[in-house]
Amino acid sequence: MSRGYDLETAFSPNGRIFQLEYAAETTLRGGTMVGVCCAEGVVLAKRVRREHGRYPLVVTPDQFTRVFQIHESIGMVHCGLLMDGYIVVEEAIKQAVSLEKAGGADIEKLVTRLVLFIQPFGQRKNMRPLGTAILAGGIDSGTKTRLFLLGAQGIAKEHRAAAWGSGRDEAKEILSEGYKEDLNLEEGHIVGSESRPRGDKRARSIGCNSECGNEKI
Amino acid sequence: MSRGYDLETAFSPNGRIFQLEYAAETTLRGGTMVGVCCAEGVVLAKRVRREHGRYPLVVTPDQFTRVFQIHESIGMVHCGLLMDGYIVVEEAIKQAVSLEKAGGADIEKLVTRLVLFIQPFGQRKNMRPLGTAILAGGIDSGTKTRLFLLGAQGIAKEHRAAAWGSGRDEAKEILSEGYKEDLNLEEGHIVGSESRPRGDKRARSIGCNSECGNEKI
Amino acid sequence: MSRGYDLETAFSPNGRIFQLEYAAETTLRGGTMVGVCCAEGVVLAKRVRREHGRYPLVVTPDQFTRVFQIHESIGMVHCGLLMDGYIVVEEAIKQAVSLEKAGGADIEKLVTRLVLFIQPFGQRKNMRPLGTAILAGGIDSGTKTRLFLLGAQGIAKEHRAAAWGSGRDEAKEILSEGYKEDLNLEEGHIVGSESRPRGDKRARSIGCNSECGNEKI
Amino acid sequence: MSRGYDLETAFSPNGRIFQLEYAAETTLRGGTMVGVCCAEGVVLAKRVRREHGRYPLVVTPDQFTRVFQIHESIGMVHCGLLMDGYIVVEEAIKQAVSLEKAGGADIEKLVTRLVLFIQPFGQRKNMRPLGTAILAGGIDSGTKTRLFLLGAQGIAKEHRAAAWGSGRDEAKEILSEGYKEDLNLEEGHIVGSESRPRGDKRARSIGCNSECGNEKI
Amino acid sequence: MSRGYDLETAFSPNGRIFQLEYAAETTLRGGTMVGVCCAEGVVLAKRVRREHGRYPLVVTPDQFTRVFQIHESIGMVHCGLLMDGYIVVEEAIKQAVSLEKAGGADIEKLVTRLVLFIQPFGQRKNMRPLGTAILAGGIDSGTKTRLFLLGAQGIAKEHRAAAWGSGRDEAKEILSEGYKEDLNLEEGHIVGSESRPRGDKRARSIGCNSECGNEKI
Amino acid sequence: MSRGYDLETAFSPNGRIFQLEYAAETTLRGGTMVGVCCAEGVVLAKRVRREHGRYPLVVTPDQFTRVFQIHESIGMVHCGLLMDGYIVVEEAIKQAVSLEKAGGADIEKLVTRLVLFIQPFGQRKNMRPLGTAILAGGIDSGTKTRLFLLGAQGIAKEHRAAAWGSGRDEAKEILSEGYKEDLNLEEGHIVGSESRPRGDKRARSIGCNSECGNEKI
Amino acid sequence: MSRGYDLETAFSPNGRIFQLEYAAETTLRGGTMVGVCCAEGVVLAKRVRREHGRYPLVVTPDQFTRVFQIHESIGMVHCGLLMDGYIVVEEAIKQAVSLEKAGGADIEKLVTRLVLFIQPFGQRKNMRPLGTAILAGGIDSGTKTRLFLLGAQGIAKEHRAAAWGSGRDEAKEILSEGYKEDLNLEEGHIVGSESRPRGDKRARSIGCNSECGNEKI
Repeated sequence: MSRGYDLETAFSPNGRIFQLEYAAETTLRGGTMVGVCCAEGVVLAKRVRREHGRYPLVVTPDQFTRVFQIHESIGMVHCGLLMDGYIVVEEAIKQAVSLEKAGGADIEKLVTRLVLFIQPFGQRKNMRPLGTAILAGGIDSGTKTRLFLLGAQGIAKEHRAAAWGSGRDEAKEILSEGYKEDLNLEEGHIVGSESRPRGDKRARSIGCNSECGNEKI
Repeated sequence: MSRGYDLETAFSPNGRIFQLEYAAETTLRGGTMVGVCCAEGVVLAKRVRREHGRYPLVVTPDQFTRVFQIHESIGMVHCGLLMDGYIVVEEAIKQAVSLEKAGGADIEKLVTRLVLFIQPFGQRKNMRPLGTAILAGGIDSGTKTRLFLLGAQGIAKEHRAAAWGSGRDEAKEILSEGYKEDLNLEEGHIVGSESRPRGDKRARSIGCNSECGNEKI
Repeated sequence: MSRGYDLETAFSPNGRIFQLEYAAETTLRGGTMVGVCCAEGVVLAKRVRREHGRYPLVVTPDQFTRVFQIHESIGMVHCGLLMDGYIVVEEAIKQAVSLEKAGGADIEKLVTRLVLFIQPFGQRKNMRPLGTAILAGGIDSGTKTRLFLLGAQGIAKEHRAAAWGSGRDEAKEILSEGYKEDLNLEEGHIVGSESRPRGDKRARSIGCNSECGNEKI
Repeated sequence: MSRGYDLETAFSPNGRIFQLEYAAETTLRGGTMVGVCCAEGVVLAKRVRREHGRYPLVVTPDQFTRVFQIHESIGMVHCGLLMDGYIVVEEAIKQAVSLEKAGGADIEKLVTRLVLFIQPFGQRKNMRPLGTAILAGGIDSGTKTRLFLLGAQGIAKEHRAAAWGSGRDEAKEILSEGYKEDLNLEEGHIVGSESRPRGDKRARSIGCNSECGNEKI
Repeated sequence: MSRGYDLETAFSPNGRIFQLEYAAETTLRGGTMVGVCCAEGVVLAKRVRREHGRYPLVVTPDQFTRVFQIHESIGMVHCGLLMDGYIVVEEAIKQAVSLEKAGGADIEKLVTRLVLFIQPFGQRKNMRPLGTAILAGGIDSGTKTRLFLLGAQGIAKEHRAAAWGSGRDEAKEILSEGYKEDLNLEEGHIVGSESRPRGDKRARSIGCNSECGNEKI
Repeated sequence: MSRGYDLETAFSPNGRIFQLEYAAETTLRGGTMVGVCCAEGVVLAKRVRREHGRYPLVVTPDQFTRVFQIHESIGMVHCGLLMDGYIVVEEAIKQAVSLEKAGGADIEKLVTRLVLFIQPFGQRKNMRPLGTAILAGGIDSGTKTRLFLLGAQGIAKEHRAAAWGSGRDEAKEILSEGYKEDLNLEEGHIVGSESRPRGDKRARSIGCNSECGNEKI
Repeated sequence: MSRGYDLETAFSPNGRIFQLEYAAETTLRGGTMVGVCCAEGVVLAKRVRREHGRYPLVVTPDQFTRVFQIHESIGMVHCGLLMDGYIVVEEAIKQAVSLEKAGGADIEKLVTRLVLFIQPFGQRKNMRPLGTAILAGGIDSGTKTRLFLLGAQGIAKEHRAAAWGSGRDEAKEILSEGYKEDLNLEEGHIVGSESRPRGDKRARSIGCNSECGNEKI
C-alpha cells in the first residue's frame, strides 16, 4: 500500500520522493521551453499554449511568461506553475544584483545560488515543492556560453542544448539533429524555433513569437 | 483513491494541486468582474449579486467590494472571498506607497509585488490558499495601459480585456466582440457594462451602478 | 465523502470553507444584535438570551456583552462566542487609539483594520476561525453615519440597517419596514428595539434594556 | 460521524467547539466555588473534596487551592485542573502589578486582561484549552463591588452572586434565595458558606474552612 | 470510541486528559519516595528498586536519583522518568539562585515557580507531559516546615507528610499512623524509613540507604 | 489497540513511551561498549562489528567510533546510531570547554549538562529521540573515578563498571566477576578487554584493538 | 502492521528508522563514486549514468555532479539526489573557509562539521532526510591522507578506499584487490577508474572522463 508515501515530502521504500515527481509532472503539462548554446550567446525560447485565451485579448508571452533578462549576460525561462516559476525569477534577479556587488554575476555562480534557493522546497514538510522547471543561460566569467536546467524534481544539470515541457520529446529530437558547437545566434535561433511539437495538431498551430519569445543574450 | 491529495496544498499524481483549484472555484461563484484596456485608461467594473440584501438596506458596492483606487494610475477589483480579496487590496496600497517612494508606482512593478505576496499562500501547508481573483489595471511607466488577472489558482496573466467570476463566459464573449485597441474610455465603459450575463435571469436584473462600480483611471 | 474538508480551514471541491461556515453557525445561535443608521448617529442594540441566569444574579448586559464605545464616534456590538468577540473589541480600541494618533479615527478606517485583524483567523491552520459576528457603527470623516457587519465566515459588508444572531430573520423584516434614510435617533431607537423575534415565545420575553443595550453615538 | 470535530479545537457543523465544552466538564467535576457581592466587599469561598487526602496529612486549602489575594481590592478562586487555574492566578498577579503602575488596578480592568490571556488557549491548535474556571471579585474604580466568572469554555460573565463546580446547581439555589443587594459581609459570608450541596452525602460532609476558605476583600 | 482522546494532550468528553493520567502512571511504577515535615526540618527519602543493577556495580542512589539539596533550606526528590525528574531539579536550582538574588529563596516561592515550569508540558501539543512526580520540602520565610507534591498529572498539593511511587499505598498507611505535628528529625527519619512496602516481597528487600537517601534539611 | 501510542513520543496507558524504548533497541544492536572504574582512572573500550568492512579498507575504530577524549580527565564512548552519538560527543566537548572556563570541568558537572542536552529529544514531538547510548567516565573534583551511562531511553545512571550494546549480557557477567574496587588500570584494561561476547561466534572473532579502543584517562 | 513507522522519521519497534533507510536506497540507485587513499593524495571519481542525456547535448560531469575541490587539500563527490548532495557541498565550502580562518582546514575537522550539518535532517520531523551519500577525501594536519563516507542513513565512517552507488558491490571487489597502502596517485587513478561495474552492460559503456571526473588532490 504505497499511498502514504506520496502525500508529503518523504521517501518511499525504494528511495523515491513522489511529491517531487508529481511536481515535475506539472512542469511537463504546460508550455514548452528550449535553450541553445551558440558561439556568441544562448538562445532561450518558450512556446505557450493559448488555452487561457480563446478570444484575442490575452497578451502572449506576457510579464510573467516571457524570457526574462536576469542580468546583462543572463537569461531565464520557466514552465509549469506560473507563480512558482516567477518567484524563482525574482530570486534570480535579487541574487544577480547581490553577485554583481560581490564582484560579478556570471551564470555559474547564479545557478549555484538558485539551487540553494530551490532545494528546501523539496525538503521541508511545511510546504509543497515548487512546481516549476527553469532554463537559465548566459555567459560565464570565462566568456563561455552555458545553459542549465533546474527542476522541481531536484534536477540541476548543465546542457549545451535542452528542452522541457509538454513538447520536450519532439523538441529534443530536433535539437540533437540541428545542434553544432559553432552555431551562430542566427542559426541557434532557427533551431530553437523549429523545435516545436509536430504530432500534436493543436500545439503546432501555436507559434513562437520570435520578437518576444526569443531574446538574444 | 485521490481523496488525500486534495485536503492540503500538495501535488496529485498528475501534477495538480486540488486546493488551488478549489480556491479558484470559490472565485467563480461570486460576483463577476470585468476589465478593459482603452487608449487613455483602463475600465474596471464589478457586478455583485444582491443575495445578502433582500431588503434595501445593504450598500452595494461598498467599502470592501468597490473598485479600489490603489494609486493615482492604478485600480483594482476582486471577486471571491471578501476578506481574502481585501487583504490583497491592502497589500497593494502598501506596496504602491513603497514603490512611489522608490521612484514610481507603475502597474507592472506593483503586480510583480502582488505575485510575490500571493504565491506563498498556495505553497505553505500551514494556511489555506487565498480564495480570491484580482483584476489590476493601470498605466505603466511607458504610459501604456495594462491589465492583469491574478488568481487563487496561481494565475498571473496579462490581458487587454478580461472577465472573471460567475458570469465570466458570457462576459468574455461580449468583450471579444466589442474590444478594439483604440477604444476611448466612454466606449470601454459601455463594453464593460454590457458584458453582463444574459441567460441567468436573476443575475441580469442586478445592475452595475456606473457611479460606484466603474471608475476611470 | 466530504468529511475531511470540514475538519480544518481548507477548501472543499466546490470552493466552500466549512470551518468558516460552522463558525458563522455559532454566531447565529446566541443573542441577536441590530444596528440602524440614523441622520445624526447610529443605534446599536443587543438582546441577550437569559439562559445562563435563571436566578436574578446575572448582570445583563455586562462588561463583556454590552454595546462598546470604541471611540468618541464609534460603537460596536458582537454576538457568538463571548471571548472571541471581546478580543475583537479590544483590538478595535487599540486601533482607534492608533488611528487617533495618526490623524483621526473614523469608522471606515477602523473597520479596514479590523478586517486585517480577523482575516488570518480564517486562513491559518494552526488556529480555529473566530466564532463571532460584529456590528460596528459610527460617523466617518465626512460626518456620514456608517454601519458595518463583520463576521466569522469572512463577511465584511456595509449596511444602512442590519441584524445578526438567532433572531435575525424577523429583525430584518422589521428593519426593512421601519427604516428610512432620515430617521432621527429617537425613531431609530424605536425601530431597533422593536426588531425582536416574535414567533419564538421564549426569546420574545427577553427584553432589551434600553439604558444599557442601546447607546447613542 | 461527529468524532473528528472533538479531537482538536475546531468547530462542529452546528457551531460547537467540543474541546471547550470538554474543558468546561473538567471544571464541573472538582471542588465547588461561590462568590457573593456584598455592600462593602465580595465574599469568595471554595469547598474542596478531600479525595486526595484520606489521611490527615493533606493541607486544605493550600498554597494552590486557596482564595488568592490578587491585589489590595481583588480576590480570586479557581476550580478544575489545579495547575491550569494557578497559571491564571499568576497572570492575574502580574497584570495587577502592571495595572497598578499604569494608574490603578481595579477589578474591571484586570478581568479584561485575563480574558485576553485565556482566549488564545481555546483558539490555537498547538495547545489544549485551559481546564479551569475562575471567580474574580473586587471593588472597581467607582467603589462598586463586582464579581466575574471566567471559564474554560469561553465564558466571561458578570454576576452579583455565582457558583461553579460539582455542587453548583444546589449552590445556585441557595444563593438566589439568600442574596440581597444590601448584604453586609457577615451575611454574605453566611450565604456563601451555606450554599453547599445537600443531596450529595459525600460532598456535604466536606466543610468549608472559614478561616482559610473565605477571605474578606 | 475513546481512542483518539488519549494520543495527544486533549480533553476527553468527560473532561479527562489521558496523556496526563498516563504520565502519572509512569511515576507510580518506579521507586517510592516519602517526605515528612518535622518540627525543625523536613525528611525526604527515596527507595530505588535495584532492577537495573543485578551485579554490585550500580551506584544507588546516584547523581541523578539522590535527594537533592536545592538550596540551603530546600530539598527535593523525584520519581518516574529519570531525565524528566532531573530537568525539574535543574530548573529548581536555577530558580533558587534567582530567588536568592531577589531577596530570599523560601520553599513557597520556589514551588510556585516550579508549577509555572511544569504546567506547559501538560498543555502544549508539541511535547509530551513530564513523566515525573516531585516532593519538595523546606523551610519557608516564616520558619515553618513545608512539603509539596508536584506531579505529571497536574497535581500541586501541600502535605504535612506524603508518599508517591510504586509503594505509596503502604507508605501512606505507615505515615498516617506515625505522623505527629511535633516529630523531631530523628523520629521523622524513622517514620520515613519504616514506610516501606511490606506486601511486595521483592521491593521489601530493597533497603533505604539512610546515609545517601535521607538528608536532613 | 496499542498501535497509536508508539508512533510518536507519547505515553501509553501504562505509562510507557514506546519511541524511547525503540530508540534504546537501536543501541542494543550495534557494537558493545564497556567501562571500568579503577583506582587511578577509568577504562573505556568499544568493540565494533566489522559488518561494514568485508574488505580490509575500513578504518576501525575511526574518527567517529573511537573512544573520545572529551577533556584532560574525561572520556566517552557511544553505541547505536553513529551520527546521533557523535552530536552528543560534540556537545560534550563544547560543554567541557565552557565548564573549564567557569572553574573546572569535572565529570559530574559534565554529565549533568549532557542530561539537559539529551532530555528534550525524548520530550518534543517535532523530532525523534536520539538513538544512542553513552558511557562517560573520568575523575571528579574530589579525584574520585566516576562512570555514567546515559541512554536514549532516558537512562542516566552512575556505575562502577558497566556494559551496553549487543554483547552487554555476557560482558556484564565478566565485569561482575572481575571487578574490584582497587583495580589498577592494567587490571581494569584486562577486565574490559575480556568482557567480550562468548556465545556469539561471529562477534567473538571481532577483536578489541587495545591501542585505539582503550584509552587510559 | 508496520506501515506507520516508515512514513516519518521515527523508530520502528526493532529500532530501525525506515525513512533513513529509504533515503540510503536513493543513494544506491544513481551514479557510482569511488575514493582511494594514495601515498601523496586521494583519488576521487564518479561515474554518472547517461540516462538524462540520450542526445549528445548534456554536459557530464557538470557544475553539480563533478568532483568538487572544497579546499586546497580537500575534495568531495556525492551521489543520490542531486540538489541534496549539492547543499552539502556548499556547506563544506562554507565550513572550509570558516576553518581556514580559525587556523587551518584539514579534512578531519571538516568532516566533523559536516556530520553536525547532516545529522538534524535525519532527526527532525519537519523535513525529510537528505538523499545523498558523500565521499570526502584529503590530507589532514599530520599530512596523512584520509577518506570519509557520509551517508543519508547516518553513516559516518573512515576508509582507506571506498565505493558507493549503484555499482558499489563490483567496485568494492576491484578496490580490495587493487588497493595497497603505498599506491602512488598514478596507480590510485588506475584502480579508481577500473572499479566500474562489469555485469551491467549499459553502465559499463559509461566511461569515466579522467580529465573531469578524477581530480588529484
